[in-house]
Amino acid sequence: MTRPRPLVPREDPADSVRVVGEFGVIARVTAQAGTARAAEVGPGDDAAVVRTSDGRVVATTDVLVEGRHFRRDWSSAEDIGHKAAAANLADVAAMGGTTTALLVGLACPPDTPTAWLEGVAAGLAEECAPLGAAVVGGDMVTAAADSTAVVLSVTALGDLGGRSPVLRSGARAGDVVALAGRLGWSAAGLAVLRRGFSSPVAVVSAHRRPTPPYGAGPAAAERGATAMCDVSDGLLADLGHIATASRVAVDLDSAALVRTCLEPVGPLQQVAAALGVDPLAWVLTGGEDHALVATFPSWVELPAGWAAIGTVRRAGKNPGVLVNGEPADEAARAVGAEGVGHVHFR
Amino acid sequence: MTRPRPLVPREDPADSVRVVGEFGVIARVTAQAGTARAAEVGPGDDAAVVRTSDGRVVATTDVLVEGRHFRRDWSSAEDIGHKAAAANLADVAAMGGTTTALLVGLACPPDTPTAWLEGVAAGLAEECAPLGAAVVGGDMVTAAADSTAVVLSVTALGDLGGRSPVLRSGARAGDVVALAGRLGWSAAGLAVLRRGFSSPVAVVSAHRRPTPPYGAGPAAAERGATAMCDVSDGLLADLGHIATASRVAVDLDSAALVRTCLEPVGPLQQVAAALGVDPLAWVLTGGEDHALVATFPSWVELPAGWAAIGTVRRAGKNPGVLVNGEPADEAARAVGAEGVGHVHFR
Repeated sequence: MTRPRPLVPREDPADSVRVVGEFGVIARVTAQAGTARAAEVGPGDDAAVVRTSDGRVVATTDVLVEGRHFRRDWSSAEDIGHKAAAANLADVAAMGGTTTALLVGLACPPDTPTAWLEGVAAGLAEECAPLGAAVVGGDMVTAAADSTAVVLSVTALGDLGGRSPVLRSGARAGDVVALAGRLGWSAAGLAVLRRGFSSPVAVVSAHRRPTPPYGAGPAAAERGATAMCDVSDGLLADLGHIATASRVAVDLDSAALVRTCLEPVGPLQQVAAALGVDPLAWVLTGGEDHALVATFPSWVELPAGWAAIGTVRRAGKNPGVLVNGEPADEAARAVGAEGVGHVHFR
Repeated sequence: MTRPRPLVPREDPADSVRVVGEFGVIARVTAQAGTARAAEVGPGDDAAVVRTSDGRVVATTDVLVEGRHFRRDWSSAEDIGHKAAAANLADVAAMGGTTTALLVGLACPPDTPTAWLEGVAAGLAEECAPLGAAVVGGDMVTAAADSTAVVLSVTALGDLGGRSPVLRSGARAGDVVALAGRLGWSAAGLAVLRRGFSSPVAVVSAHRRPTPPYGAGPAAAERGATAMCDVSDGLLADLGHIATASRVAVDLDSAALVRTCLEPVGPLQQVAAALGVDPLAWVLTGGEDHALVATFPSWVELPAGWAAIGTVRRAGKNPGVLVNGEPADEAARAVGAEGVGHVHFR
């Protein structure tokens, strides 16, 4: 999926958004947008119009700030487009929906190369295309005078296809906790990049372009999942949202997690060994892979791509998230993780 | 509508988002969100779910950057919320739709007072409430390390109620050009604020909290408007988009514009006289009032609130926008305007 690309975007003042101008940049970027199957009105008017199949639309927004959520020297423009789209497409999938369209807000310094913006647009389009989705609108403005950072705000619209949305609040004692997708790979890739390396490619690519299992969301909804969310801040942190919203304890089985996420031995263990890290720490607390985690009634056969990793219990003495019956923060400490997941504003 | 408020937000480190923390801030801000009539799932899950009446959703995004689109010393937090919502609600109205829900992306420095963010949320909610809309989701992240500016990205979803969307591309020779709402007031208010004054209140309030005629958009669509857009960058600039998309000339009648926008004599002329400005310059090129401008077949009786200000002609020797048959840039120069409207990236 990931082609090798230059890490540092070329800086060409003649190609900057200041020189090319607002409407020139919008024309070039829009040329990369692709076509959304559900779009009745696409880019270029006051607003887009997107068809919905069942009289409802799923909608979610994610904001990415350069230096906090991506670095231009670690990720190509296309990578950043893929990643920004993936975070939103996974949120829609976690409701049981399929993304139909994106809107993109962008604040960028006047010396941003147009080619870099075209790359972001191409990455967004490539990530959306398999679902029949595309960018249908947006806004582009000049960044704050004191900032050299690009701020990217992506809104995804999605379709539930007649299914009920799967909320965080529906988990019930006795349900099976199940996982679809990878955990810890993005964290491993980030650890590698932070140390100045760019291999193994498998984990670095996973950090640059997460590959969430979009189809697993609607499949889980069809099969009667009772609660679901995507893992953007770490498994323990995001399951904590389900535990809180559903007022239950979510008890993970570490042996099942190891079987599901760390067998057979692969790049994750190789990187962990090289860096002296317990790979289970990445699995439990690493964010940004955008795996899906859901709870299912115990009598349900899990859909393809889903694996059982725990059980929902009544919130008794130990509410929240547990690992083998012990509180999550203790489990996280035991494997050397700094906390249960990502927290903003620190 | 506008209550007097302190111009400078109180800085209270104990109240900053860094101290209160991500989830505390989200809880406080969400408490201001109000309730969207069409929301099936509101804030707090991976995504919101919003009902649509006719199997389509209107969607638009606007990005506001502190220092470029608003100043915390010129506008209260509530003002900024009102203004950010208004820009989006007007875009939905310009398609012939009614806003049902907002999503808000926010990047803010860690020392931003929570009370300020609550104020923005309250302003967004107040502007939406008369339409039955509210904030149903969003994302809040830390601003770039080098920036003290807040970046606000607002996405509006809207409902067409079975009407066809009114595009920019449908104007035909012979159509009447008509206006709903005010022009030049926000520009006059900005001119006053730039000179360090804060009165007359009427124009300063118009800059802080524009009052777009939201109902006029759906009414124009019902009555068969052939093209429509909102005036965010200035009348000449925005009519230019209709002229280009429809491949026509839009010929404004300056006497009709004066009758519609400058009679009877009011605060706009008083400010213009005090500052030595031709008020028609503000009417022709001032942005951010979010009036609606549309074209109607000549046999149509204009809906209430709409006034004729010109005629659509074939794009002959003088395509684009004309004033009394003369090119718009000459008309703009004649009244002392610097250009036909706002351009980004300069």
